[in-house]
Amino acid sequence: MGNLLDKIQFPADIKKFSIAELETLAQEIRERLILTLSKTGGHLGPNLGVVELTLAMHYIFDTPADRFVFDVSHQAYVHKLLTGRRDRFDTIRQPGGLNGFMLRTESEHDSYGAGHAGTALSAALGMAVARDLAGGKEHVIALAGDAAFTNGISFEALNNISDQTRRLILVLNDNEWSIDRNVGAIARYLHKIVTNEHVTHLHESAARLLERFGGKTAVNVVRRAEEAAKGLLWPSVFFEEFGLTYYGPLDGHNIGLLIETFKFLKQQDKPVILHAITQKGRGFQPALDKQKKFHGLGPYDPETGDTKPAGQRTYSEVFAETLVKLATENEKVVAITAAMPNGTALDLFRPHHPKKYFDVGIAEEHAVIFAAGMATRGYKPFCAIYSTFLQRAFDPLVHDVCLQNLPVVFCMDRGGLSGDDGATHHGLFDISYMRGIPNITHMVPKDEDELADMLYTAMLHDGPAAVRYPRGTGPGTAVKSHPVALPIGKAEVIRDGDEIAILGLGALLPMAEELADRLLEQGHSAAVINPRFVKPLDRELLASYAARVTAIVTFEDHVLMGGFGSAVLEALNEMNFDLPVIRIGWPDRFIEHGKVEQLRARYGISVEAAMEKLAPYLKRRTAKRLVAR
Amino acid sequence: MGNLLDKIQFPADIKKFSIAELETLAQEIRERLILTLSKTGGHLGPNLGVVELTLAMHYIFDTPADRFVFDVSHQAYVHKLLTGRRDRFDTIRQPGGLNGFMLRTESEHDSYGAGHAGTALSAALGMAVARDLAGGKEHVIALAGDAAFTNGISFEALNNISDQTRRLILVLNDNEWSIDRNVGAIARYLHKIVTNEHVTHLHESAARLLERFGGKTAVNVVRRAEEAAKGLLWPSVFFEEFGLTYYGPLDGHNIGLLIETFKFLKQQDKPVILHAITQKGRGFQPALDKQKKFHGLGPYDPETGDTKPAGQRTYSEVFAETLVKLATENEKVVAITAAMPNGTALDLFRPHHPKKYFDVGIAEEHAVIFAAGMATRGYKPFCAIYSTFLQRAFDPLVHDVCLQNLPVVFCMDRGGLSGDDGATHHGLFDISYMRGIPNITHMVPKDEDELADMLYTAMLHDGPAAVRYPRGTGPGTAVKSHPVALPIGKAEVIRDGDEIAILGLGALLPMAEELADRLLEQGHSAAVINPRFVKPLDRELLASYAARVTAIVTFEDHVLMGGFGSAVLEALNEMNFDLPVIRIGWPDRFIEHGKVEQLRARYGISVEAAMEKLAPYLKRRTAKRLVAR
Repeated sequence: MGNLLDKIQFPADIKKFSIAELETLAQEIRERLILTLSKTGGHLGPNLGVVELTLAMHYIFDTPADRFVFDVSHQAYVHKLLTGRRDRFDTIRQPGGLNGFMLRTESEHDSYGAGHAGTALSAALGMAVARDLAGGKEHVIALAGDAAFTNGISFEALNNISDQTRRLILVLNDNEWSIDRNVGAIARYLHKIVTNEHVTHLHESAARLLERFGGKTAVNVVRRAEEAAKGLLWPSVFFEEFGLTYYGPLDGHNIGLLIETFKFLKQQDKPVILHAITQKGRGFQPALDKQKKFHGLGPYDPETGDTKPAGQRTYSEVFAETLVKLATENEKVVAITAAMPNGTALDLFRPHHPKKYFDVGIAEEHAVIFAAGMATRGYKPFCAIYSTFLQRAFDPLVHDVCLQNLPVVFCMDRGGLSGDDGATHHGLFDISYMRGIPNITHMVPKDEDELADMLYTAMLHDGPAAVRYPRGTGPGTAVKSHPVALPIGKAEVIRDGDEIAILGLGALLPMAEELADRLLEQGHSAAVINPRFVKPLDRELLASYAARVTAIVTFEDHVLMGGFGSAVLEALNEMNFDLPVIRIGWPDRFIEHGKVEQLRARYGISVEAAMEKLAPYLKRRTAKRLVAR
Repeated sequence: MGNLLDKIQFPADIKKFSIAELETLAQEIRERLILTLSKTGGHLGPNLGVVELTLAMHYIFDTPADRFVFDVSHQAYVHKLLTGRRDRFDTIRQPGGLNGFMLRTESEHDSYGAGHAGTALSAALGMAVARDLAGGKEHVIALAGDAAFTNGISFEALNNISDQTRRLILVLNDNEWSIDRNVGAIARYLHKIVTNEHVTHLHESAARLLERFGGKTAVNVVRRAEEAAKGLLWPSVFFEEFGLTYYGPLDGHNIGLLIETFKFLKQQDKPVILHAITQKGRGFQPALDKQKKFHGLGPYDPETGDTKPAGQRTYSEVFAETLVKLATENEKVVAITAAMPNGTALDLFRPHHPKKYFDVGIAEEHAVIFAAGMATRGYKPFCAIYSTFLQRAFDPLVHDVCLQNLPVVFCMDRGGLSGDDGATHHGLFDISYMRGIPNITHMVPKDEDELADMLYTAMLHDGPAAVRYPRGTGPGTAVKSHPVALPIGKAEVIRDGDEIAILGLGALLPMAEELADRLLEQGHSAAVINPRFVKPLDRELLASYAARVTAIVTFEDHVLMGGFGSAVLEALNEMNFDLPVIRIGWPDRFIEHGKVEQLRARYGISVEAAMEKLAPYLKRRTAKRLVAR
């Protein structure tokens, strides 16, 4: 095992391989993926699906001169294995190791970073137009899954391609799944093409043709394969209306056929789309059996695919279970996801309320405006969208929901540092992008039970509300049988104290408590406050503490710039309080991937950092006391 | 004139009119529009184009029970005239008067507010699904221009419609123009349908048919017209692939035909799209001759369409002229607009650098990712997008540009209160949504010449940069023959002083100067600072003043929450300064339309407000001085 793979340093190394060797290499790559990811976790299914596609692309094109743009780019592991990163492949998604997505700073072979869906066509078109302006000769190849076409940006790009360049290769990697099974008209349309009998026939005969001539000289192969490729031409009205010449559907695991097709496409003087049919999880039965699970996951058994039994319930699960309850007692409650029923746990909601469940595809903007439309008719839509993906729907949030003061609830999963996925998935900006918008109520729960209360509070509130909760598990607090409504804009005093007031937002409340314990050990009395509401902020409580304490400390799992601590500064400023405020949160830089605890320590999101910053004020206070005594 | 129109209080009043009377009414409405808007200004062209469409919709459907959703809704003036707002129509876009867009708080006939394009299908689908869930019978009709289909959200909605409802009526108001002539594949596709000879023939014969039977009894008309409508059926593969049954193209000014077609469509048990061809500016020759000018404009001569000669150059014009210069000397400079060449003044750039000019349609997300793609290849894209519309591209700004630290320049026109257009067009949030994002440089010029310098600075800067400038004209400062580079993150001291430091951001610098004058009159010495950079903030200068003044005042044409003043608070906090900061800016609420000066006065964006807030600190200082003497 690994005989061929271990010879490869750069893509040029595979160009002398025969088709048979490439097929062996594909097998070796699959084994490497299955074994490595069983330890590191990662996007196994998508990468098993694109082994041959990636090999064929690197066989025909030459990166870094030619530019590959992968949509989302969670399917770039094979590309990483082939582009000088094989030796470090076991560090993928590990602290200090390779990123799980394409990253421009990681390799010159990574033309474009991604992490959010639907961007590949636009970025690739930009590169193609740049090439045309500069008189370059390089090729630009965008690889996008079928799910990318549920996203509006892909269409905005499609609408521009044929006007702006004559050379662009689009590869539609069609596995009928993104993370969950795709929804909507486009998915149905692609399925119709794929299952068309005539297409199937053409496809098979082309494959046979290539098989027969595959062993002959290169000249022969090219000529025959061009014929094969032309034979595969199946006019797709849909893409052709956008001015792209359509080729396919093609078996995305037939490496010889792919190579010959790319050879043909490389010579076209017009924008083209290749429709390749692939199988997500190919070569690993557990991944074929459980597509959703193996889209992206943690460590597993490389033989059986088994993962460790789930422990404590995640915030996502508590969210979904609570929403099931709310929708049962309130007929106006509906749930909306943008292609993340698994990630948001709304797949637990669906069987209970199938008619009140809406998966709209990777279409965050539509999701929010659709929700606003429902809200105008008395419904109470809960949009479950990760904090980082809600950035996509920022304008609908402002313009459709908040401006019209409609009661849409934003359930922002992955609020805070997301960990292994890295900068593209951290949810570190939602307070700063949302706080300036009038009418919104922004809440952050301290634990699972409070999440349930906040969802209930949002349901009762007649206006836009957002609830932000972290990835994974919380403290494990038991959830009450029925949530209670929280008073809007009221914080919770966890313990009183009169020297320091510590506000610990959400997941960082334990840090606030630990800081208070430490202070107590040193003889300082500290209050611990669970703010609950970023907006509206509990000014009354803040004022009562500001009037009597020496300093205030804020903890937030968010950037400091424009964050929760900044809201505290503004409130104190407006109420004319002058006292030291120590703000603990993320600095003004993008944070790499890694373990949450390690990254927090590295960037000073810690009790130690707070103690250090607080020290001068403690001394002063101690000094005053000594004088007073 | 006005005989029929003045009889109409509510839509029910037109339902007894004959076709001939409706045609007269259409004429009266056109006259009213031309005359009223000649005084108030407004979106004349689009409204002249939808007179018959709006009449026919109100003739067949019953608002407010039935729901009309107008995309952008700048074409809702006729709807406003028919729905209880005729008496106040001359107040449109005037302070305290009718809003220029649909507004839920203005009338129960306004189902959904808008102002940004591409939202109508999503909102309408939300309403249709809500109706289906609630078992309602009402109709939902979305009216969208062809330009809405250059926007991705429309496609996200299209992709969901046929899965989610069986009853939704889409009206495609096709005038081949939005604000400028439309771009891209969809526009070409629609044009192809419209110019198809067979279609033209069908269309003409249907019109003749209706004309012939128009005078007969209602029963006859319905039957014949249904036949006519069916005869018009022209299968549009494109829309039908999305599961919508397509009817059209239809003469959007033939009111009899429209009425009979809506009657037919009302009975369909499937989502339908009606493709109506209209003429923007119909009935007013100047508006037909100059489509762009009459899309939306200020007062004009109702006979000739003449407007007052343009005075001083606008910020937009200075931007475009500067960019022409920059692109001439730097081959890597390119300009991108999202369907606003006129509004952003990039139409002045185009003739100079046609190959470096890109209009991508109403596709802000694509525009920014396309720019990012070009930037990876060494280009320097200037994206000219209004502050409020850049909200659309917030995720691309974060995820594609800033995260990858690519040198894309955001030229944010209409930064600050926009005035007549109202809340949908004010650019009051860009500091708060942008400041938390690492890597971005955010600049605000004090005048036209500094705008040129900032664009030049942005061109030289190797990273993302945003320049925010207001609508309309500035102080009229002459622009140097060649811009100079400003040191990044350095503010400009306009005048020194040692009691108060006043920071006046951009357009509000004159307020800072006026405040300083007033203070001086009272014997207080005030420094006036032009901050230039919101990010990075000039901390050094801030520290030097914080160390010696009694108080700091900030002025910004932006919401206070998360705004420039908040950035000052954060910096002072981090540098451990404790001194009063008076922040002047917009409060935490959406601001209505009106005259900028009036609204500023109303909401305390004024020298008076600053004086009042500053008073307590001045007294203290005065008292101290007295003691010191």
